[in-house]
Amino acid sequence: MNYAEESLRLHEYWKGKIEVRAAVSVATADDLSLAYTPGVAAPCLEIQKAPGRSYDLTLRHNLCAVITDGSAVLGLGDIGPEAAMPVMEGKCVLFKAFGKVDAFPLCVNTKDVEEFVNTVARISGSFGGINLEDISAPRCFEIERKLKERCEIPVFHDDQHGTAVITLAGIQNALKVVHKKKEEVKIVTSGAGAAAVSIVRLLLLAGFPDIAMCDRQGAIYKGRKGLNWIKEEMAELTNLERQQGSLADLLKGADIFIGVSGPGTVTSEMVKTMKKDAVIFACANPTPEIFPEEARAGGARVIATGRSDFPNQINNVLAFPGIFRGAFDARASDINDEMKLAAANALADLIPETELCEDYIIPKAFDPRVGPAVAAAVKKAAEKTGVARFTGETL
Amino acid sequence: MNYAEESLRLHEYWKGKIEVRAAVSVATADDLSLAYTPGVAAPCLEIQKAPGRSYDLTLRHNLCAVITDGSAVLGLGDIGPEAAMPVMEGKCVLFKAFGKVDAFPLCVNTKDVEEFVNTVARISGSFGGINLEDISAPRCFEIERKLKERCEIPVFHDDQHGTAVITLAGIQNALKVVHKKKEEVKIVTSGAGAAAVSIVRLLLLAGFPDIAMCDRQGAIYKGRKGLNWIKEEMAELTNLERQQGSLADLLKGADIFIGVSGPGTVTSEMVKTMKKDAVIFACANPTPEIFPEEARAGGARVIATGRSDFPNQINNVLAFPGIFRGAFDARASDINDEMKLAAANALADLIPETELCEDYIIPKAFDPRVGPAVAAAVKKAAEKTGVARFTGETL
Repeated sequence: MNYAEESLRLHEYWKGKIEVRAAVSVATADDLSLAYTPGVAAPCLEIQKAPGRSYDLTLRHNLCAVITDGSAVLGLGDIGPEAAMPVMEGKCVLFKAFGKVDAFPLCVNTKDVEEFVNTVARISGSFGGINLEDISAPRCFEIERKLKERCEIPVFHDDQHGTAVITLAGIQNALKVVHKKKEEVKIVTSGAGAAAVSIVRLLLLAGFPDIAMCDRQGAIYKGRKGLNWIKEEMAELTNLERQQGSLADLLKGADIFIGVSGPGTVTSEMVKTMKKDAVIFACANPTPEIFPEEARAGGARVIATGRSDFPNQINNVLAFPGIFRGAFDARASDINDEMKLAAANALADLIPETELCEDYIIPKAFDPRVGPAVAAAVKKAAEKTGVARFTGETL
Repeated sequence: MNYAEESLRLHEYWKGKIEVRAAVSVATADDLSLAYTPGVAAPCLEIQKAPGRSYDLTLRHNLCAVITDGSAVLGLGDIGPEAAMPVMEGKCVLFKAFGKVDAFPLCVNTKDVEEFVNTVARISGSFGGINLEDISAPRCFEIERKLKERCEIPVFHDDQHGTAVITLAGIQNALKVVHKKKEEVKIVTSGAGAAAVSIVRLLLLAGFPDIAMCDRQGAIYKGRKGLNWIKEEMAELTNLERQQGSLADLLKGADIFIGVSGPGTVTSEMVKTMKKDAVIFACANPTPEIFPEEARAGGARVIATGRSDFPNQINNVLAFPGIFRGAFDARASDINDEMKLAAANALADLIPETELCEDYIIPKAFDPRVGPAVAAAVKKAAEKTGVARFTGETL
């Protein structure tokens, strides 16, 4: 199937992939008086007294904004706010289908970090959570940090954290397959954008001590000239031996490669220089850093990609619907690191040791157990870490 | 029925009166590839080339934002953004039920005009139209004017223009009942807020030459001290004889009273001083400026209120759903005066002369002909005045 051609044709036909529906009837004068004036004054006054009551009396408890500035859409780059909307609508469809979350798409027409943050913060009282989407790095880090400070609801940048959660789950299971321990393995990443930074941070949090990051210029190390602020920050946390050189240099003797960069950055020859039973996560989409058969030819044992036509797909739909479902079920004020780690563990644990193998380290996108398992784990972690809130609680 | 008590109970049960639904299936890997990556890149690129294509390829063509700052909600005043949301959700329900418009509620947490305008303008690319709601005067006039300048989509403040359209329709029909001409009648209004200003402006546009406005201090006239800017502006256009005095003074010899102020401002005695066959629009809600039986006792011939339990209800649901339906059907870039006048005429014309009488000058809220009639007239007026746009047209 020619996806581009068919998708365009379908979008013309659909004219919108979501719909806002009335969930109550207004067929009679009494209906009107209860859903609207004069009756509606009562829930309004209730919320005025205690803003937390908005979770009981409006859709807020289940409503997530999917917000972009259109600056880093798919692999297309900065295509602008309106042009990003088909992706945002698609994301909302996935939120509903996989997490029973009502999600609504918004594009913000500014590239200025402060303006973006102000805009989103000011409308945040309309929602129970905010999912940032397709915002270019390093602006996305600053935007997310500032919004987390300003908003009383969870703020989550899926391109960062969703990807990180699933990658961590996959790496954990891959290590079980190759019988290695997280304390022993050396990880090398290619890419230093939103996904790479967040993956590395979560892997560090999960107890992987030895990670080195590469960008187009090669190894990122403390003291390298011309690093932007986020790479400088990452240079403090990774590559503690300050190894220099190209990606090929760093891969020598590494156990795990994680690519979130671009097509063709890794060759079969490079994989050959890695340790025995190498693990390759080549997540660039649609063309991975190295195709599975080449990686296999180089001796790789476990191979994951972002594609649905190979085994072990790193697909964000495995994480974000369940993560928001769990956060909403807990009325969480935040999606914190413990909740992300819990989501990764829940995902990894869905595959029993007896079924784990090279070609099955990550649940499939349509596995119906995924959403509920992730949601339950995230809710529990929210309660444990004190970010869950309860009926009537003041915000 | 105790509407307040029942409504609160129902809102607890409903937990949101709207719902965001997926309008497409994502049950298979192919579904995913068409609604989301990789297929979705095609419609994105299409919109990047021509932003007007967002009307063909996303929900934008039918999507209206219902936006408030919570500063003038119902009769409750400034209750804050979150507390206004039950009203906004209710409005969205009415948009869908009466106009087949997808409407989404947003509250903006700022009282600053510039901040509000910036926020709404920056997200306006996500929508096909903006309905402002429950914003206090005179800020609402400035906000609407600035947003109309900044946005390429219709911006409509329903508390102003919806009310004005229905009032004009009702006054036109009332004059047929009492056999008076618009050129001859003297109109006096009570209230100088959003609704009053917009009603007077539309009546002037429609050719009613003699209108005087009153606020709590009495007649508004050119040269009165302490007028705010909007009242000063209205003093230029109304009360050309610069009549001074109280509402009671001005009503002497008037033909029509329009109240959009507060309860009990008009007495039976005051109505007695008006011309024969007086027309009383007492729209304060829930308690009108004067109750119908008192007005009748004072000699009033046609009486309208904002309430559903009396004849001739001025109910905004008669206008805004059809107005946006028509604007959207025309892909209008604006809702202009001609479109408002067309809506008023369509509403008035729904009642044939043979059925017109004291107690039936305005169609009923549940009359199924209303939405389609208003929409068709508005669409036609949009096309006539050059604000309609066509498939693929650049914004």
